[in-house]
Amino acid sequence: CSTRKKKACHLPKLPASVPSSRTQMASTSPEPAATETGDSVKIRRLQIADRERGFLPLLSQLSSCPDLTESEFAACFADLAALGDDHVILVAEDPAAAPERRILSTGCLFVERKFLRGGGKVGHVEDVVVDAAARGRGLGLRVVRRLVEIAKGAGCYKVILDCTPELRAYYAKCGFVEKGVQMAVYF
Amino acid sequence: CSTRKKKACHLPKLPASVPSSRTQMASTSPEPAATETGDSVKIRRLQIADRERGFLPLLSQLSSCPDLTESEFAACFADLAALGDDHVILVAEDPAAAPERRILSTGCLFVERKFLRGGGKVGHVEDVVVDAAARGRGLGLRVVRRLVEIAKGAGCYKVILDCTPELRAYYAKCGFVEKGVQMAVYF
Repeated sequence: CSTRKKKACHLPKLPASVPSSRTQMASTSPEPAATETGDSVKIRRLQIADRERGFLPLLSQLSSCPDLTESEFAACFADLAALGDDHVILVAEDPAAAPERRILSTGCLFVERKFLRGGGKVGHVEDVVVDAAARGRGLGLRVVRRLVEIAKGAGCYKVILDCTPELRAYYAKCGFVEKGVQMAVYF
Repeated sequence: CSTRKKKACHLPKLPASVPSSRTQMASTSPEPAATETGDSVKIRRLQIADRERGFLPLLSQLSSCPDLTESEFAACFADLAALGDDHVILVAEDPAAAPERRILSTGCLFVERKFLRGGGKVGHVEDVVVDAAARGRGLGLRVVRRLVEIAKGAGCYKVILDCTPELRAYYAKCGFVEKGVQMAVYF
């Protein structure tokens, strides 16, 4: 992972009149309070205001993540929010951190529907990252475990993810076992 | 893969008045004619009538695939068709085969949208299978290559899939290279 970029986001706050459905990913089940690590970091759904809290610089530690303008971010957020509970992005927020660096970890779940398994569902975990300065506190594991719980609650018969061989032991802590190889074509 | 089940589907045909958008997966670009293998097998989008052509027994060679009633199949088809070009199921149909065994291969592509890569898209290839009696004719490769073309045309920056280690060389024929390991949790 690359070093965390320290670019701050100085954006106007959204007006209070913006409906919550447009600013927070839909959820049929509220997330329980975070208590596992005893710190003040909360795991919750992505909010549109997280662009101002360092969400994109955090993702850039995982892969190329050019900045998105406020409207580009909002469009991407709306595309994903339209998928409802079939697409969940969780973030770990530290309310004690500087405003533009509050998002310390994130991870995504999307639910794929199949004809297999009687019209079964599979959860795919993607884009898991923990801020380089916040590693070792179990934040990534909290995010991934919550995503797995959500997938189970949604009726998925399995959850899968792809990772580097070095991360096998990390994901084993969340119950994952190795199943195969990941292949890719890049354009 | 298990041996192909020979269960035939004897279902009434859909009335001719059913709109094509309800019976065929949406497409913004028609598939070109199949010419690669010189046989009469055509690669095309899944149609709702493929339930009568052996689509589910074919999938059962890949994984557990209990039969779906006509209405269950239609509901699953509608859920996936609602995703438009973000979810494509291709089939290889042999018009010369017995009516209930015409679908010889299938594969699926779904498109995941991300905040990474400037709001980038990733294609996921899933549920690729070739009828045990039709292997060695390149049908699976035709399906996968077409899925990769569709993903590229949709603006995906990569296409990924998971497979067993034994299938690495097979997917290398379509340009795939090994990238990591697949991990899974089963419920």
